[in-house]
Amino acid sequence: MPRYFLTLEYDGGPFRGWQKQTNGPSVQETLETAIEALTGSHARATAAGRTDAGVHASGQVAHVDLLEAWPGTTLRDALNHHLRPAPVVVRKAEEVGDHMHARFSALERRYLYRIVNRRAPLALDRGRAWQVAAPLRAELMHEAAQRLVGHHDFTSFRSSQCQSASPEKTLDHLMVVRVGDELHIHARARSFLHHQMRNMVGTLELVGEGRWQVADVDTALAARDRRAAGPTAPPHGLYLVAVRYPDRNGT
Amino acid sequence: MPRYFLTLEYDGGPFRGWQKQTNGPSVQETLETAIEALTGSHARATAAGRTDAGVHASGQVAHVDLLEAWPGTTLRDALNHHLRPAPVVVRKAEEVGDHMHARFSALERRYLYRIVNRRAPLALDRGRAWQVAAPLRAELMHEAAQRLVGHHDFTSFRSSQCQSASPEKTLDHLMVVRVGDELHIHARARSFLHHQMRNMVGTLELVGEGRWQVADVDTALAARDRRAAGPTAPPHGLYLVAVRYPDRNGT
Repeated sequence: MPRYFLTLEYDGGPFRGWQKQTNGPSVQETLETAIEALTGSHARATAAGRTDAGVHASGQVAHVDLLEAWPGTTLRDALNHHLRPAPVVVRKAEEVGDHMHARFSALERRYLYRIVNRRAPLALDRGRAWQVAAPLRAELMHEAAQRLVGHHDFTSFRSSQCQSASPEKTLDHLMVVRVGDELHIHARARSFLHHQMRNMVGTLELVGEGRWQVADVDTALAARDRRAAGPTAPPHGLYLVAVRYPDRNGT
Repeated sequence: MPRYFLTLEYDGGPFRGWQKQTNGPSVQETLETAIEALTGSHARATAAGRTDAGVHASGQVAHVDLLEAWPGTTLRDALNHHLRPAPVVVRKAEEVGDHMHARFSALERRYLYRIVNRRAPLALDRGRAWQVAAPLRAELMHEAAQRLVGHHDFTSFRSSQCQSASPEKTLDHLMVVRVGDELHIHARARSFLHHQMRNMVGTLELVGEGRWQVADVDTALAARDRRAAGPTAPPHGLYLVAVRYPDRNGT
């Protein structure tokens, strides 16, 4: 059975998250329904990142095994036809070797968190960014973010529902940049704990407001206690933007 | 009666356009309803640009005359409270002299048109950009755009419903730039004819696809006939981004 990697974009707003749920629509189920409508048989979709309810993706990757072989562009266009009108699209479909696994073969995941830092609520970006009225100092947030980069026990930034065997992760990159009235927080790591990104953003926001000092982030990290860090930032500012895999040369 | 300039952001999707209509919701009516809910009396809102159904704004400006004086920030926050949940927000409210008129005092209007140039439909930017599957050559579109800059008779790019006394306008700036898989078309002029921006974009798109040569744009302009130019680009890619007024020094 040929295996395909599907690069997905979706608006997380209407979904209970990636994973199939009994209490509402999921991205996984939406995709699997489109695959079944196209191929006539059920195929399970496995994603690189099981995004939470409300979290968006511009570059999620999922793999599926199909009974027949499809040219990538045909598969992409046909699935997009069957996905309509759900806000889920296949940006790319490509056949990969069956040793490739969307979740376990991923070398790196990249996330973006968007804050719109202004007093007025959002009209155009409603549900697409976290609106924060208090003026935020991006340069202090960036400085604080550097305290989180590296190999750490991220217990303070991990949801109580996190199923990861270990709270230790290596965060390769965490950058806060101001773009007009927006703050973009870019993160890169092999993998993240449940809610890690949103908990880091919620903590950095306290620094940006001036309610926390940069050094308070060190203290929160060292505490290894979820209660020591800041609140969980809302899901609708978060985007899974890319997943990196080994190429044919194994790099 | 003190006059206020309100800088507005809105998602044009759910509206029949700026102007009050009998057949559906308008931005004007939504704003006037919020003003009446706040102040207890009706005030007419006059906009710099009467955007069409589906057209967005990040920097529309409207003026209203109120019976009482309000601090700008209070007026902004109170109106935003009453506008909820409509996708219309007041970004700024400021008192101006009563000689200032949102429409007639405007020195310049700026528009942005967003094309997402890719094969896959849009999930995150659905209703926020025009998706064009055919590969577009932005540099040729930019070259063609320069043929439209300057003082011209824009009859070929004017809707048959246009109420402007003259088809002559001066287009100060028209720039096409590629930003990743997006094309941004920036335009600046004192004023625009009805559908002028969307008709220019629809024409430039033909050049980008290679169906038209750059010189065909000269021919279309010279024809002074709407049928000589390209189709009208869809409204949901268009944004009124800013309106410029004389400052206190009269510049």
